[in-house]
Amino acid sequence: MKATILNIGDELLSGLIVNTNATFIAQQLDLIGVKVIRIDTVSDNGVEISNAVDQHLTQCDIIIITGGLGPTNDDITKYTLANKFGMSLQFNELAYINIENLFKNRGLGVTETNRLQAMLPDKCTVLINTQGTAPGMWFDYQDKIIVSLPGVPFEMKYLMENEVLPRLKSKCTDLFIVRKLFHTTGVAESHLQDMLIEWERNLPSYSQFAYLPEPGIVKLRLSFSGNNEKSLNDELNTQEQKLREILGNSIFGINSETIEEIVGNLLNQKKQTLSIAESCTGGYISHLITSISGSSQYFKGSVISYSNKIKSDVLEVDENIINKYGAVSKEVVIEMARGVQQLCKTDYAISISGIAGPDGGTKDKPVGTVWISIATPNTIEAKHFLFGDNRQRNIRRAAIAALNELRKELLNK
Amino acid sequence: MKATILNIGDELLSGLIVNTNATFIAQQLDLIGVKVIRIDTVSDNGVEISNAVDQHLTQCDIIIITGGLGPTNDDITKYTLANKFGMSLQFNELAYINIENLFKNRGLGVTETNRLQAMLPDKCTVLINTQGTAPGMWFDYQDKIIVSLPGVPFEMKYLMENEVLPRLKSKCTDLFIVRKLFHTTGVAESHLQDMLIEWERNLPSYSQFAYLPEPGIVKLRLSFSGNNEKSLNDELNTQEQKLREILGNSIFGINSETIEEIVGNLLNQKKQTLSIAESCTGGYISHLITSISGSSQYFKGSVISYSNKIKSDVLEVDENIINKYGAVSKEVVIEMARGVQQLCKTDYAISISGIAGPDGGTKDKPVGTVWISIATPNTIEAKHFLFGDNRQRNIRRAAIAALNELRKELLNK
Repeated sequence: MKATILNIGDELLSGLIVNTNATFIAQQLDLIGVKVIRIDTVSDNGVEISNAVDQHLTQCDIIIITGGLGPTNDDITKYTLANKFGMSLQFNELAYINIENLFKNRGLGVTETNRLQAMLPDKCTVLINTQGTAPGMWFDYQDKIIVSLPGVPFEMKYLMENEVLPRLKSKCTDLFIVRKLFHTTGVAESHLQDMLIEWERNLPSYSQFAYLPEPGIVKLRLSFSGNNEKSLNDELNTQEQKLREILGNSIFGINSETIEEIVGNLLNQKKQTLSIAESCTGGYISHLITSISGSSQYFKGSVISYSNKIKSDVLEVDENIINKYGAVSKEVVIEMARGVQQLCKTDYAISISGIAGPDGGTKDKPVGTVWISIATPNTIEAKHFLFGDNRQRNIRRAAIAALNELRKELLNK
Repeated sequence: MKATILNIGDELLSGLIVNTNATFIAQQLDLIGVKVIRIDTVSDNGVEISNAVDQHLTQCDIIIITGGLGPTNDDITKYTLANKFGMSLQFNELAYINIENLFKNRGLGVTETNRLQAMLPDKCTVLINTQGTAPGMWFDYQDKIIVSLPGVPFEMKYLMENEVLPRLKSKCTDLFIVRKLFHTTGVAESHLQDMLIEWERNLPSYSQFAYLPEPGIVKLRLSFSGNNEKSLNDELNTQEQKLREILGNSIFGINSETIEEIVGNLLNQKKQTLSIAESCTGGYISHLITSISGSSQYFKGSVISYSNKIKSDVLEVDENIINKYGAVSKEVVIEMARGVQQLCKTDYAISISGIAGPDGGTKDKPVGTVWISIATPNTIEAKHFLFGDNRQRNIRRAAIAALNELRKELLNK
């Protein structure tokens, strides 16, 4: 089956927002073997939307539309589609109850504007959106499928995952794609390529392999397509084993796993606790750790010691050590890790101090210099890193490196 | 002038990469008054590319194409366009010298594959790309302009900024677009709409107004287009004043400003310092504050008191108060704010405690319940919030609400 993604919105055409919706939908369709042949963006204009739908219907089997379903005047997708498919709008009880619940949870009554969002084309399948007030719509039209979803990313994702993909999956059973994403850290992309050159050369012809680099992480995507699902899975397992033999510990997770999740799982399994002392990352490591639901089981707390005074007053780092070696030093991060571990009474502690930039660098300690220390119940060690000159990327890379150091310690014990 | 952005690449259609090129080009064209009417993505296929160009030429004056200019076999944009416009390829000396220099800088000689990149359509204007081996191409064709750029983002940006935009600017002096983005928080989108209904109705016909909601923030975009730049700016100022009269303090920033930046600026101006005690947001507020370069001027540190023990041990919250009122309570956040303010010796302090979810909610304190306290040099107050049931969004919304409470305190003093 072939699909087109049609995104509606002047905010996309004027470059106000990046079209991450198209990327997400394309990935998801790709995973179930639906080939995306076009991604098109048009303005919030009924004629444009209608013409685009007509044009794409001649070339594909499915159109996934996003945007233009909000409660405001510039949201016209619903009216355009109802009109195009000769449907009239009728009040949908379930959609209304959902809207009412959303408002009730926030202690509010439904406004007249939002009530109108429950008026929906009479012959479409309404996709109830528990994440927001705009329902999705599924139209079966002359052997084609047209799906209209809200443009708010998390609402679109909810409806794709819970309503659209399960329905589409049941319709495409001829081609199987099996795929795994491997997350690596600590090895540069070019070095990974050198390590994998021989293995890559020997992959079967029905495979695809791609490097997807991000700050601090390189993801490796391996996929196989064909019509025998079992043999594809067998091949994937075989190749995964070979890949893991070559890359070892550098692979920290697969598919949607994150390093904060992996570290959390390890702490949970071992019933160990964690505290963090952050300087240059300013709370970002703690944020990653606590983004995981259930993290209060192992995470006790952090001290963000942005000023030296807090390093000495709260973490009890000796002021003489700070003066002698500087705040960004092996000696100081070791004291910080010990300090937070004792203060929070945890088994493990991470500490980090560095120069995120753009200011604060010196010849000896340029922007990007970072010291990370991991305290375990028995040991305490520190490691030096040198990242780049971009503040946001340095924060991200330093946080991933710190979590990876902790991960390695947890795997060793 | 109207433009279409045409992105070529299977990696976009399979969701392997996000189309940030389109966003950048759209922003840049928008700034010089070129209206982007369509953003289209097609595969690396000559027929598809050619058909898309034909289609868009009937509707716009300019097509900016990206991608398909690399040295490999699947890069066919150049051949497709040369063929379409009846041109033959000829060796371009300047393009070749540029390629040669790029290789020389890396201590390499030009390969045969890369030499072919200097073979270019004979009647196009070659745009020398000092950032990479693929030159850009500018075609004047039947009163229309077609520009072909490489897909590598920094190469595309270089050519847009240095070659394409200066040429386009000289051609469009007739239409001006003036625009401002207003960031609001604390008022729901539907409520904003109710407040603005009358004002919106009275906007002049040459204006455009849009609501752009995100978790915790609703952005409002107001633009005017016409041929008298001064009168458009005057109108924008007039309407901005009216908008600010209606929305008052709910507008916290404009254009690319963020709430953490605004709060940082206020602290800087007033030479005041800040510390933070975070529970449910787990470090995210500190992360936002320290994502701003120069934040060490006003931000001293935080305590992430995820466990009650740290609330009492480090922040000196009375254990009896925690037991009596619970960790998520007015009494506890007030003690937390006072505790961190004293510990870090700062003028201001934020504290926050809540139930981010998905677990931990009760009938009295459902998931999404958040208490925020702001300590100033003279006062300490707390406020109750009720967000939704999604952990990530609750963290984001709670952080924005906390920063907004601090902003309001800073504006009042």
